[in-house]
Amino acid sequence: MPLHLKRVLAFNVSRNPQRPPSHLLAFSPCILPIRKVSTLPPRATHLSRLQPAHISQLRALLPSSNSVLSTFDNSASSDDLQPYNRDWMAKYEGRSQVVLKPRNTEEVSKVIRWCGENGIGVVPQGGNTGLVGGSTPIHDELILSLSSLNKIRSFDPMSGVLTAESGVILEQADSYLSKQAEGFIFPLDLGAKGSCQIGGNVATNAGGLRLLRYGSLRGSVLGLEVVLPDGTIWNGLSGLLKDNTGYDLKQLFIGSEGSIGIVTAVSILCPRRPKSNNVALFSLPSYEACLKVFAETKSHLGEILSAFEMFDKTAYEAVKRHGGVKKVFEEGKEGGFYCLVETGGSNAEHDSEKLSNLFESLISSSLILDGVLAQDSTQSASLWRIRELCPESLSKAGKAYKYDLSVPVEKMYCLVEHMRQRMRDVGMLKDDGTGKVKSVAGFGHMGDGNLHLNVVATEFSEEVQSAIEPFVYELVAENNGSISAEHGLGAMKAPYISYSQSPTSIELMRQIKQLIDPKGIMNPYKFIT
Amino acid sequence: MPLHLKRVLAFNVSRNPQRPPSHLLAFSPCILPIRKVSTLPPRATHLSRLQPAHISQLRALLPSSNSVLSTFDNSASSDDLQPYNRDWMAKYEGRSQVVLKPRNTEEVSKVIRWCGENGIGVVPQGGNTGLVGGSTPIHDELILSLSSLNKIRSFDPMSGVLTAESGVILEQADSYLSKQAEGFIFPLDLGAKGSCQIGGNVATNAGGLRLLRYGSLRGSVLGLEVVLPDGTIWNGLSGLLKDNTGYDLKQLFIGSEGSIGIVTAVSILCPRRPKSNNVALFSLPSYEACLKVFAETKSHLGEILSAFEMFDKTAYEAVKRHGGVKKVFEEGKEGGFYCLVETGGSNAEHDSEKLSNLFESLISSSLILDGVLAQDSTQSASLWRIRELCPESLSKAGKAYKYDLSVPVEKMYCLVEHMRQRMRDVGMLKDDGTGKVKSVAGFGHMGDGNLHLNVVATEFSEEVQSAIEPFVYELVAENNGSISAEHGLGAMKAPYISYSQSPTSIELMRQIKQLIDPKGIMNPYKFIT
Repeated sequence: MPLHLKRVLAFNVSRNPQRPPSHLLAFSPCILPIRKVSTLPPRATHLSRLQPAHISQLRALLPSSNSVLSTFDNSASSDDLQPYNRDWMAKYEGRSQVVLKPRNTEEVSKVIRWCGENGIGVVPQGGNTGLVGGSTPIHDELILSLSSLNKIRSFDPMSGVLTAESGVILEQADSYLSKQAEGFIFPLDLGAKGSCQIGGNVATNAGGLRLLRYGSLRGSVLGLEVVLPDGTIWNGLSGLLKDNTGYDLKQLFIGSEGSIGIVTAVSILCPRRPKSNNVALFSLPSYEACLKVFAETKSHLGEILSAFEMFDKTAYEAVKRHGGVKKVFEEGKEGGFYCLVETGGSNAEHDSEKLSNLFESLISSSLILDGVLAQDSTQSASLWRIRELCPESLSKAGKAYKYDLSVPVEKMYCLVEHMRQRMRDVGMLKDDGTGKVKSVAGFGHMGDGNLHLNVVATEFSEEVQSAIEPFVYELVAENNGSISAEHGLGAMKAPYISYSQSPTSIELMRQIKQLIDPKGIMNPYKFIT
Repeated sequence: MPLHLKRVLAFNVSRNPQRPPSHLLAFSPCILPIRKVSTLPPRATHLSRLQPAHISQLRALLPSSNSVLSTFDNSASSDDLQPYNRDWMAKYEGRSQVVLKPRNTEEVSKVIRWCGENGIGVVPQGGNTGLVGGSTPIHDELILSLSSLNKIRSFDPMSGVLTAESGVILEQADSYLSKQAEGFIFPLDLGAKGSCQIGGNVATNAGGLRLLRYGSLRGSVLGLEVVLPDGTIWNGLSGLLKDNTGYDLKQLFIGSEGSIGIVTAVSILCPRRPKSNNVALFSLPSYEACLKVFAETKSHLGEILSAFEMFDKTAYEAVKRHGGVKKVFEEGKEGGFYCLVETGGSNAEHDSEKLSNLFESLISSSLILDGVLAQDSTQSASLWRIRELCPESLSKAGKAYKYDLSVPVEKMYCLVEHMRQRMRDVGMLKDDGTGKVKSVAGFGHMGDGNLHLNVVATEFSEEVQSAIEPFVYELVAENNGSISAEHGLGAMKAPYISYSQSPTSIELMRQIKQLIDPKGIMNPYKFIT
């Protein structure tokens, strides 16, 4: 068991009675009419259909065995293709009859050139771990899996620059780095690390758990290799930390969700792995307390703070019930909110001292109900696991509508409270549990002002969805937030981009898409439509 | 006087005899023929000439007094306009007859729309502190000074997000931040901070002294307000740390050098100001020793390392001679190289302990000849001043040809040694000091692999320039480096972009320029031509 703070510091944590958070005093419940949501777009007339006769052409481009899977020639059944056609939440499912697995960049180039010449829509797919229907086809597009491009090309321990292919799995990249020289770390970490691929991470500009410390991929990615929509291989790989010779083209492809090219390799700056790591979990009475603890934590931990994560009671209850996790806090010490704090530093003694100072300050100010400090890496992993199990556990609790939102951190939890109120107002969330919505939960990267809002319903239906959308996006827009902090637009949010982007921005984006992908073959129906 | 390390640690620094650096053993002097350099481009036929009759139209757009300066109506003399027409090194000088100083974004928009309608080329100008002739006209372009857009619009101490107009001077922004709440810091610092403007910093993607710690502007700039070439105001300001809703358009404008729009305001994430700062300066016998000290420093200081700068003996001698700086090290302790190390942390005691551990390790390994540790902020500033005076002092030592190069850090100083050899080979650098080249010096941001190579000559002439260029760019290209790490392309390096960028990259950049500035009015003759 992790050590409880009172044992670390040898005095008791005083209980803080529940108070209504002051930032909610101005809360005015708003009942908006339920609107009909837009359904997925119809098949585009500018794209040609894949035909059985195409298969021999594709096999000529990709001669290795198992590089072409298709129902056309019975090299695969529909069941075989389902994991490629359907996202992991089973929320989006296309009906592609062809999956290609090129082995190298040249093969990707040949396929994309062929698609352009034949007017075939193509969906690049990494680990297929996305949450917005970005990596599965909408209709019959060709699926191009990057999973066979899985080589680490080079690593330079002097600079920390790793160059690896798109299909390398994030956890494998991190594990490889941990063994290099004195130890390095991949500057990105996220719950899906065991299956997501670094090319997909870059193509969606994934944020994750380490952004607070190591910044976004826009800073750490130094270069990319990309196959452009006409099949040209753009070699923009680089080991340089600085290069001001023209527009930074790689930025166009970071977060472009396969709409203007396919990332085939990545050069990324990897920091040294911290020599010392600590993980603590606090139980708190209110979101207001979370905000104060966040400020205190930044002040005490400064440069060693590497993550500040939050989850609410609803999320925690789901993890306890569906994630197989035993309770961490005694009954009376469980609060409405939980914050996970991680430190990473170069001197264990210094880090412990900074943490002790923080704990003393938190306990004496009665901001927390209780806290635990992991005593070893196994306990650290256990505490992290609670936070990481939030999305999966809420999915197990029912049909979870998932929203990835960004607003100023003070307003972050208001979104959950407003949504809860909304669900009550439309009669879907009922005290006796008989409503179509079972619960509304919030968790996320508090250090980045990034909330994951989950509405757990009894069904995926237009009725429930219409009660949530576009209400949730209107709420975000009112607070100058982002309707997609880190998940991207995909198919799910493409119709709602105007809640976060101005007409001028959208027009400029359309022009860029048109410039680079004039035939409109790249990941159609998504992103910028 | 700063405290010498031997006094701090109470034992002597042993002398390390000069050894030939092993990384130079493979050095093969190459004598390339002296080539004729390309001269500045002729006046473009697609641009119209400013006429006296235009002045009344411009005054109608900018009615405030002193917003229009022109020799056409004698509201300014040629002498008055010279500081706008000429760069600070007096290396580039245009002959514009009109300088405009709009007071707000709407006025910038009106001017740019007018320029588009009338086919007038326009040069945006911030503090005019650039080094590549990017902020002065080549011919008769209209100069648009951003210096009157100098308001800080907002600062949020919870998130650290500052929103300020382009014309705010960097030092003023930093000073303002230091007084907010517990103290914040601008994530960029550079020698020209007293006169450069943050809009120019962003438009040139300035790197500077804090990049090692706080990363590049591509990570810290959260949003921009930009006037596009058709006069449209693009409001891309944002206080959000994460936003994945489409292409990250602001990245196109960061580092675009005014070629596709004019940055009028910036939202930037500012970290908390470190509570504790330390500065040390080491004297070292060789570049090889610098590399080893760099590795040791990263290992010992980890997350508190905020700068690792280097300058060579030639630069140091120039500073002592022209910068009014007294010598720091005794005669026998002066080396061929100097490294400045800065730490910034949240706990003074911890930082001191980490530094002491580093010093003990450096002294026991005989890697340094001597070292000093600043005892207070005045001494810290004095040590920094030596490094910051390098560019200015070398300019005072003669006519300095300045190159801003990026290569893997191991190869950084090779560039200086190759250039020195080149100058000897072509007979310009002579032991008796009678050559056209007086010295070749190197200094820069070693932590970023960013070298500032200075060739100090007796004259700015085609002959000297032809001996340096394109030799220097060829050297960089051979090492997969960048011909402009942080200074940008401007007029100086635009003709040489192909040494750092592939034909595919250049073609894509041209298409983007054409898309956003189809009339070619924005900062003509520079950047992507």
